[in-house]
Amino acid sequence: MSITFYDIPSSLPGCAWSPNTFKTRYTLNFKGIPYKTEWVEYPDIEPLCKKLGIPPSSKDYYTLPAIHDPSTGVYISDSIRIAEYLERTYPDTPQVFPHNTLPLQDAFVVAFAGNLTALWNFIIPAICDKLSPRSEEYFRRTREKSFGKAMEDIVPKGEVAVAEWAKFKEGMGKIDAWYAKNRGKGPFLLGETPSWGDIVIASYFLWMRIVWGEDSQQWKDVSTWNNGRWAGIVEALKKYETVV
Amino acid sequence: MSITFYDIPSSLPGCAWSPNTFKTRYTLNFKGIPYKTEWVEYPDIEPLCKKLGIPPSSKDYYTLPAIHDPSTGVYISDSIRIAEYLERTYPDTPQVFPHNTLPLQDAFVVAFAGNLTALWNFIIPAICDKLSPRSEEYFRRTREKSFGKAMEDIVPKGEVAVAEWAKFKEGMGKIDAWYAKNRGKGPFLLGETPSWGDIVIASYFLWMRIVWGEDSQQWKDVSTWNNGRWAGIVEALKKYETVV
Repeated sequence: MSITFYDIPSSLPGCAWSPNTFKTRYTLNFKGIPYKTEWVEYPDIEPLCKKLGIPPSSKDYYTLPAIHDPSTGVYISDSIRIAEYLERTYPDTPQVFPHNTLPLQDAFVVAFAGNLTALWNFIIPAICDKLSPRSEEYFRRTREKSFGKAMEDIVPKGEVAVAEWAKFKEGMGKIDAWYAKNRGKGPFLLGETPSWGDIVIASYFLWMRIVWGEDSQQWKDVSTWNNGRWAGIVEALKKYETVV
Repeated sequence: MSITFYDIPSSLPGCAWSPNTFKTRYTLNFKGIPYKTEWVEYPDIEPLCKKLGIPPSSKDYYTLPAIHDPSTGVYISDSIRIAEYLERTYPDTPQVFPHNTLPLQDAFVVAFAGNLTALWNFIIPAICDKLSPRSEEYFRRTREKSFGKAMEDIVPKGEVAVAEWAKFKEGMGKIDAWYAKNRGKGPFLLGETPSWGDIVIASYFLWMRIVWGEDSQQWKDVSTWNNGRWAGIVEALKKYETVV
C-alpha cells in the first residue's frame, strides 16, 4: 500500500494549485516514493483530520498537505514536517536536506516567505473562482475574516498596486542575490541538485503561474524577473510536479 | 609572506574582542592559512583603508576586518567577503561553506543577526572602557551619534531591561530551534564539522564573554540558555580563537 497524500482540488486542469501542498508533491516525486492523491475540499479538511487523527499544523488550525503512510501507520501534516518524516523514514531516497542542511534550508525559507508579504493581496482574490463552489464559499469567508475586508477590496489598485508590486519584486531580488552567490555552480540553491529551498520556491511560483495563468500580465512580469530565475526553477523541477 | 589581518585592539589581555573581526580570525585559523595580525585603532581605520586602497564595506563606511594577501595582491574587507575570497583562493583548505552552502549560511546569519537587536543596547556601553583612550573617544562619539543618546543612557534599566533581556533570550531560542533540528548529529549547524554559521555565532558569544567578562551576571545568564548551546559552541571552537 502506498502513501496517501491529501491535497485541495481546484477546478483547473490538473486540479493541483496550492503552494503548500505542491511542496509535498515535489518532495514525494523527487524522492520517488509511491503515493496516491486524495482530494479534499476546504470545508472537509478539519473533519477529515479530526477523524483520521491528523494533528493540526498550528494550535487548532487544520491545513493540508497531510499524508498517511500505511507502512508506519503515521499521519502527519505540514510540508516541512512531512519532508523531515520522509527523509528520516526513507533514508535511501534522494535527500531534500542533503548534508544536514535542514536548519539552514529552513532559515532560507523563512527569509523567502518574509519577502512574500506584498504578494498575498494580489493573489488571494484570484484563487476564489478556481475552486469548487463549496471550497470557494469557505475560502472567501475565512480569508475575508482574516484580511478584514471583502475579497474584491483586497487586490491593491492604482498607485498602491504599483508600489506593492515593486516591493514584491524587490524582495525577490534579495533572494536572487543569495542564488547568485553560487553563480556558475548550477541552477539550484546548492548547485546542480535541487533541495528543499528550491522546492519551496518552485511551489510558490508554480502557484502564481497556475492561479494567474501563463498568459496573465502578472506571470509574464514575474517570469522575467532576475533573468528568468523563478520561471527557470519551475521549469527545472517540471518532472517533479506531476500529479499522481 | 603571510596574509596581514587588520583587527581593532582592546586593552584586555589578548587584545582581540570585536565580533566582526573574530569571524575572520576563526576563518583563518580554521583554514590553517598563515597570517599575522596588525592592530589598528578606531580613528586610524579609515585613513589606513584609504591609503591601502581597501574598499569600504558599505558605501563610504570603512570597517575592519580587512586583510591583505600578498600572494595575490588583494586587499579586501567585510568578514563574509573575506571568507568567500579565502574559500575561492585556497580551495584545498577546510571549507567554511561546504557543499555550496554559502547562500544558505548567509540566510541563516541574517536571521541570527535579526535576533540580536535587543543585545546592542546592553553591550555597546560595556565596550567603551575596554578600548584605548583614542579609540574610546572615537567609539563613544560615533555611537552616541548613531544611538542619539549619551553612552550612559543607552543601557536599558528597570522593567525595560527585563523585557529587552527576555526579548534577546527569546530570539536565541528561535536560533536554538534550528540547531535542534539536527539533534544527535553533532554540536554544529551541519553536524560534526563547524561552518560559517557556527563561526558567526561563536564570534558574537565570545564577544559577550570578553566584553562583559566571564564572571558577569550577563555571561552567567547567557551561557546557560538553551542548555548551554552558545557557550558550548564557543568552547568547541576554542582552538580557532587563537590570536596570532
